[in-house]
Amino acid sequence: MKSEIIAVGSEMLTPFRQDTNSLYITERLNALGIIVTFKTIVGDRQKDLVSAIRTALGRVDILILMGGLGPTEDDLTREAVAEALSLTLRRDASQVAALHARAASWRITMPQNNLKQADVIAGATLLPNANGTAPGQWLDIAFSSYRKLIALLPGPPSECRPLFDAECLPRLRSAAPPRHIAVRTLKAAMIPESQADKLLAPIYTTYADVETTLLAHTGDLQITLICSKPDADSAQQRVDELAGRIEETLEDWIYSSEGDSLEQIVLYHLELRQATLAIAESCTGGLVAQRLTSVAGASRSFLGGMVVYSDALKTTLAGVPAELIAEQGAVSAPVAKALAQGIRGRTGATIGVGITGIAGPSGATENKPVGLVHIAICDPQGCDTVERTFRGDRQRIREWAAQQALDLIRRRLI
Amino acid sequence: MKSEIIAVGSEMLTPFRQDTNSLYITERLNALGIIVTFKTIVGDRQKDLVSAIRTALGRVDILILMGGLGPTEDDLTREAVAEALSLTLRRDASQVAALHARAASWRITMPQNNLKQADVIAGATLLPNANGTAPGQWLDIAFSSYRKLIALLPGPPSECRPLFDAECLPRLRSAAPPRHIAVRTLKAAMIPESQADKLLAPIYTTYADVETTLLAHTGDLQITLICSKPDADSAQQRVDELAGRIEETLEDWIYSSEGDSLEQIVLYHLELRQATLAIAESCTGGLVAQRLTSVAGASRSFLGGMVVYSDALKTTLAGVPAELIAEQGAVSAPVAKALAQGIRGRTGATIGVGITGIAGPSGATENKPVGLVHIAICDPQGCDTVERTFRGDRQRIREWAAQQALDLIRRRLI
Repeated sequence: MKSEIIAVGSEMLTPFRQDTNSLYITERLNALGIIVTFKTIVGDRQKDLVSAIRTALGRVDILILMGGLGPTEDDLTREAVAEALSLTLRRDASQVAALHARAASWRITMPQNNLKQADVIAGATLLPNANGTAPGQWLDIAFSSYRKLIALLPGPPSECRPLFDAECLPRLRSAAPPRHIAVRTLKAAMIPESQADKLLAPIYTTYADVETTLLAHTGDLQITLICSKPDADSAQQRVDELAGRIEETLEDWIYSSEGDSLEQIVLYHLELRQATLAIAESCTGGLVAQRLTSVAGASRSFLGGMVVYSDALKTTLAGVPAELIAEQGAVSAPVAKALAQGIRGRTGATIGVGITGIAGPSGATENKPVGLVHIAICDPQGCDTVERTFRGDRQRIREWAAQQALDLIRRRLI
Repeated sequence: MKSEIIAVGSEMLTPFRQDTNSLYITERLNALGIIVTFKTIVGDRQKDLVSAIRTALGRVDILILMGGLGPTEDDLTREAVAEALSLTLRRDASQVAALHARAASWRITMPQNNLKQADVIAGATLLPNANGTAPGQWLDIAFSSYRKLIALLPGPPSECRPLFDAECLPRLRSAAPPRHIAVRTLKAAMIPESQADKLLAPIYTTYADVETTLLAHTGDLQITLICSKPDADSAQQRVDELAGRIEETLEDWIYSSEGDSLEQIVLYHLELRQATLAIAESCTGGLVAQRLTSVAGASRSFLGGMVVYSDALKTTLAGVPAELIAEQGAVSAPVAKALAQGIRGRTGATIGVGITGIAGPSGATENKPVGLVHIAICDPQGCDTVERTFRGDRQRIREWAAQQALDLIRRRLI
């Protein structure tokens, strides 16, 4: 079955805001074997909305509308769906009572406008919204003699998503033909996308029944495999077989075959080895620490670290000799190593990491370009240093450096 | 004039990837007084593309298509536009020569498929692409007796955006009626969106000629004012007048009236006062340091800091007495204060900040819920501590805490 998602709201036609609910809902629809063939973003104008709804009903079986169910004059989704289908709206007495009760409990006078939220399209089922005032609506109707399923959902993610899961998923599951979808997500670090595709395309193109998607972002490559079959076992078998061949091909570029993040994998290996980690960051300014501590339970293996942004702090906090900085420059392999040793010594961590580089846009010298990064990793067996030059703006260079540091830690642990 | 943006590519109909070019292009279009009334995302299927193009030409004057210009069989935008307009494609000899020359310079044999990129829609102008192989195309045609402007742009942001700026902007500027757009962006910290709107709605609704947009994200509120007039001065005057009234109303909630980020403003005030800053972070795990160091030139005022995630490091690195942690718990006002004093003492910074909290999901105790955060800020005049309880998941609690810490530093400095 084909579906279209329409996100309603003029703010999503500005340079400042983007629909994100549709990514969530697409994942849920795909899991039922329902593909999304169009997404449309439309503003708060009834004429435009009616046009978008009619266009959608002409090309898909399932239409998910998000937004435009609030109490203001700009909230027009109910009216537009009714107009597009030539149906009437009726004001639901129990909804009116619920709105009054809620206003009373908040000790506020209910603005007249709020009653709009009690308007129900003829034939629609109201979908209770546990997280807001506007209920959703569900229509299962014939349109030009085809069956169409239409959901009206509130726009705020905290209302839209749970309401979709609770009310729409079960209805869609019983409407869609039974399909079994197997999904695997492999993750690889620091391999160029073109190189990965060159290695993998000859393999995955022979699996026509598995949809393979490669997505790359600053040194992180996500490979998603999706297979839909009438029975679950054969879908899973195909996906697992292809995943196995990809793992063989990319070898230790692959850091996860279950979709984990690189920071999760680093923490997993640390815990497995009962090792602890501490980091002294200069150019990444806390980015590596921030990624590690974004994982719940990071404190079991990640002790902490330092952001030694000034040269003085590299010396006073991390114990890098001032002469070394004067001789070699702050961005140098010896200083990266001294940072790693310094943080390891001062924290008692099994592994110490030092990162120093030039994130730009200024700071380059004749021999040291913007993007130059030195990373050192020290453990009881000794120290390794790596020099890399990354391209891009300040933010990208910092992200590449953080990714490279995490991957070095992973490779040291495996 | 009205425009529609169509993003072409099946990957943008998966849960994994989203169109972002359209935000960039919307900003550029708006600056010419051209509004975006629809955005459509469509996959790599010619039938769907033709349908989307025809629908768009029925409702807007300007159509911007992005993606589907590459060399593979999935790249169908040229073919679809030609079909939708009943125009032919011809293979451009000079483009073919250019593709061969490029392949030769790379010492590769050119795959036959690549020649698709030399196909030009009858009547289209080729738009040179300095950053890739596929040129863009521009059509200025009559469709159902209306003038329509159509741009075909490559999908990769690094090609799409410069090509749009170099080739489409000048053409659109001469086609659109002259308009002058004034824009101001105000930023406020830690004010609830509903409270801001309650205060501001009575004001901005009286400026019907200024489009006011409020966007809130974890304690950061962006207020954008856009006014379009035939002459530049009166547009600017209206925007400035409204900006002035908003600043008066929100007072010191406002941290920037020129769209700067909170970290930029903190660094600006530090530099103005020739003060330096150092931070000891526990629950935010480097997030505050990472935000500050994302600003170029941060090193002039931000010395660095510590990520003292384990209790032991709070003592050994930041000098928090172990007994204090044992008595008060690591998440407590006295420990936040000791962190701030410790980092200040060890780095010699003018201002020291300590942050400790429970980001969750575990770690709560009977008296200390998930979301509880203590922040302390110390300078030569003394220390302040603040206790807040934030709601949301781990990531949101960390983001709220980082935003609160930066806002406290700002307020201490102004």
